[in-house]
Amino acid sequence: MTMGWHMMLGFSPALFGCYIWEENHSYQMLRRSKACVINLPTVDLVDTVVGIGNCHGADVDKFQRFGLTPRRATKVAAPLIVECYANFECKLIDASLINRYSLFIFEVVKAHVATSPKYPTTMHYRGDGVFMISGQNVSYRRRFKRVNL
Amino acid sequence: MTMGWHMMLGFSPALFGCYIWEENHSYQMLRRSKACVINLPTVDLVDTVVGIGNCHGADVDKFQRFGLTPRRATKVAAPLIVECYANFECKLIDASLINRYSLFIFEVVKAHVATSPKYPTTMHYRGDGVFMISGQNVSYRRRFKRVNL
Repeated sequence: MTMGWHMMLGFSPALFGCYIWEENHSYQMLRRSKACVINLPTVDLVDTVVGIGNCHGADVDKFQRFGLTPRRATKVAAPLIVECYANFECKLIDASLINRYSLFIFEVVKAHVATSPKYPTTMHYRGDGVFMISGQNVSYRRRFKRVNL
Repeated sequence: MTMGWHMMLGFSPALFGCYIWEENHSYQMLRRSKACVINLPTVDLVDTVVGIGNCHGADVDKFQRFGLTPRRATKVAAPLIVECYANFECKLIDASLINRYSLFIFEVVKAHVATSPKYPTTMHYRGDGVFMISGQNVSYRRRFKRVNL
């Protein structure tokens, strides 16, 4: 599935919160398997991202339809998507907020990240069918207190 | 305060989740007042954003130090920041996740958004003192099913 609403919730352990609508095919799969892989696509995959978000996993094998390559993960049963810049193997560590907020709390148990480019060009959903493409990267590191980095 | 970790959690009501570290001056203020304004800055305010994130509200009047203009909100006691593109008046509707995840669940009770430009140039924290500046906006609206817009 394509997912747009998510946030970091801690570094150690690495926690990640995801909003997943109950109508998504992934919703019940995640409740049952208690694990997933979160794949970070770059802008060259934008057609795939839109396509995946607009068909239903109960009707379609999305790996096959969109020509994506699965690779075995190391800590969870779900596969990585080879074409993505980064892959995060996740375990569901708290299911208590699913009913109230559709909020899944995952722990990232293994991360795979390409070493180049340092800052990939990513896409960010604005709603209404519009994406913002990531632009320039600017460091203000020297103006940060060390504790805030 | 400057805040980097947050997510939408619903449209109606408009829910917004924010991670706020207990060392932030705002942490106790929010627990007490149960309300806030979330202000969305544009890239022309990047020096202010970095500066605000690297001083402490117990020591400094941040409105004064950074030359920001407060304006009275309509539904909460906290002021809006006039210089920001958008301001969201929020009420804390669920404090039960603060101890476990530092997660504050707010309802947006009033939104103020500039009408122009349609897509402001925003900054997005990547960690390590680096910001991504928002780039091009691209519509894929015609490829979305209506239910997914």
